[in-house]
Amino acid sequence: MSISGTGRVLLAVNAFHPQRWHDLVAAERDVILEREPGTDPSITYAVVWKQKPNLLVGLPNLKVIFSVGAGVDHIMEDPTIPTDVPVVRVVAEDLTQHMVEYVVWRVLDHHRHGRQYRENQRLRAWRDVEQRNAGDVSVGIMGFGHLGRAAARALMPLGFRINGWSRSERRMDGVNSYAGDAGLVPFLNATDILLVLLPFTQTTKGIIDYKLLKELRRRNALGGAVLINAGRGRLQKETDILRALDDGTLKEASLDVFEIEPLPKTSPLWNHPKVFVTPHAAATSDPVHLVPVMLAQMAAYERDGTLENLVDREAGY
Amino acid sequence: MSISGTGRVLLAVNAFHPQRWHDLVAAERDVILEREPGTDPSITYAVVWKQKPNLLVGLPNLKVIFSVGAGVDHIMEDPTIPTDVPVVRVVAEDLTQHMVEYVVWRVLDHHRHGRQYRENQRLRAWRDVEQRNAGDVSVGIMGFGHLGRAAARALMPLGFRINGWSRSERRMDGVNSYAGDAGLVPFLNATDILLVLLPFTQTTKGIIDYKLLKELRRRNALGGAVLINAGRGRLQKETDILRALDDGTLKEASLDVFEIEPLPKTSPLWNHPKVFVTPHAAATSDPVHLVPVMLAQMAAYERDGTLENLVDREAGY
Repeated sequence: MSISGTGRVLLAVNAFHPQRWHDLVAAERDVILEREPGTDPSITYAVVWKQKPNLLVGLPNLKVIFSVGAGVDHIMEDPTIPTDVPVVRVVAEDLTQHMVEYVVWRVLDHHRHGRQYRENQRLRAWRDVEQRNAGDVSVGIMGFGHLGRAAARALMPLGFRINGWSRSERRMDGVNSYAGDAGLVPFLNATDILLVLLPFTQTTKGIIDYKLLKELRRRNALGGAVLINAGRGRLQKETDILRALDDGTLKEASLDVFEIEPLPKTSPLWNHPKVFVTPHAAATSDPVHLVPVMLAQMAAYERDGTLENLVDREAGY
Repeated sequence: MSISGTGRVLLAVNAFHPQRWHDLVAAERDVILEREPGTDPSITYAVVWKQKPNLLVGLPNLKVIFSVGAGVDHIMEDPTIPTDVPVVRVVAEDLTQHMVEYVVWRVLDHHRHGRQYRENQRLRAWRDVEQRNAGDVSVGIMGFGHLGRAAARALMPLGFRINGWSRSERRMDGVNSYAGDAGLVPFLNATDILLVLLPFTQTTKGIIDYKLLKELRRRNALGGAVLINAGRGRLQKETDILRALDDGTLKEASLDVFEIEPLPKTSPLWNHPKVFVTPHAAATSDPVHLVPVMLAQMAAYERDGTLENLVDREAGY
């Protein structure tokens, strides 16, 4: 099977250094950045991230849509994206590495009482905080796909106990697996640090609410439950997180994603003493790493029709 | 060979929960906590940490000195400690685990721009900081013994490049080894984050001075050189560290140990914006973990004379 590679690439990557994307793709492919409304039979591939609606309407020869990054909600929520064209996720190893760094950094900062020590330093107080072993702490990873499993592999050698929860069961050596609606409460009841790496779908929307946080272990080796969200902002209800922090349901939180991004200046999360805010920066990918992966995906498709990392349109991720 | 185990244990552990030490050792051995001046032939073992001078004078049947923790400077600097009695270091795996946690936590906090993000949060600024890959960052570990090697093993899977420096060369797969006086400057010239895990001896006293810090790489993927000292405070000259921070030779520092401990309230390190202070808390050990290790060391000695983790009195560590 041979597929012509002579068509043009429509590049609509509205973040992640768009100019660098352009230069790297244009070195090997015929690229266009803008298109007029109407029909354009010259375009074979579209590369998208936060694309405008209607961008992919009227492309009769569109063969594959390449979606940049781990999350595909920008595709799923755009009803103008053709449903009969396969969507492929473009993820480079550096994105996974960055996510693993963020996760290990935040887990250790909570486990090692970073907030308390920074406060003690401000007070010039030479006072240590009781340090429990990582083996007494369970990190519960919600969303146990590629990133969740990479996080588990990095946390296990540090001694943490790992619980994994996903919609359908995904086993891994050394991990306590939980799955589906029936597994959710037992998973939370066994978790001290909740790490959210779920995809955003209609099912997961707002899943991190007060009721869910209430099921985490509070009488634990950390002196309270901790939330880390590096998935998507709309998974969480921020008023519920604030309520949980203020009544002791949660001890601390590290949030990289928010219901509205950029996080509005008026949000009480900014100056909440128990919250660490980063600007959706846990895992970015350099086009230097992503573009070669994508060009290789195009070449494999043209060689024999292979499409790896296909998005399941039905499941929404 | 059989050695009588009927003698008493002199327990002088002046930190690390002395009462818990007592209870755990007394469950298996005949323990005394205090002794009168003069001769006491009943004592076979001494267990010490920050002991008072002259404590071990007049013990004709003392067979082994057990030193609690990784550092032995409290023994080396006490001229009243008998030189003809072997000194054994008591280190449990939880101390190593805690040190590894501290190291990974601090390396990631510097690599992931924790200080900058905390400052941005204070300003409610949604602004990401350019994130380079760990593979562009070299961590140079000074002191490549048990703890240094454990730190290297934890940092390598995160992608960091590792340099190791020690007095005599100690090779390890994946690590660039440097040794001795001749290797020091090349080691520093190849290092972005300097991690100090050296023992304190007359040779290493004050080794972390301005001249040494000046040899670290400053034009690097982190935007500056970083110092992490989790070894001993008297390895460093704090006035030199302050000078290096203030003139840009160092970008940031994480210090767990200090020339004088507790760190005096008047020290400018406490409120220096580029310094993270912890109160010699990087790696503590729970007697629950240490005491069984030590009791096993005593039993092995009584069984066949085995003494593991012997301190080299000549080298001073």
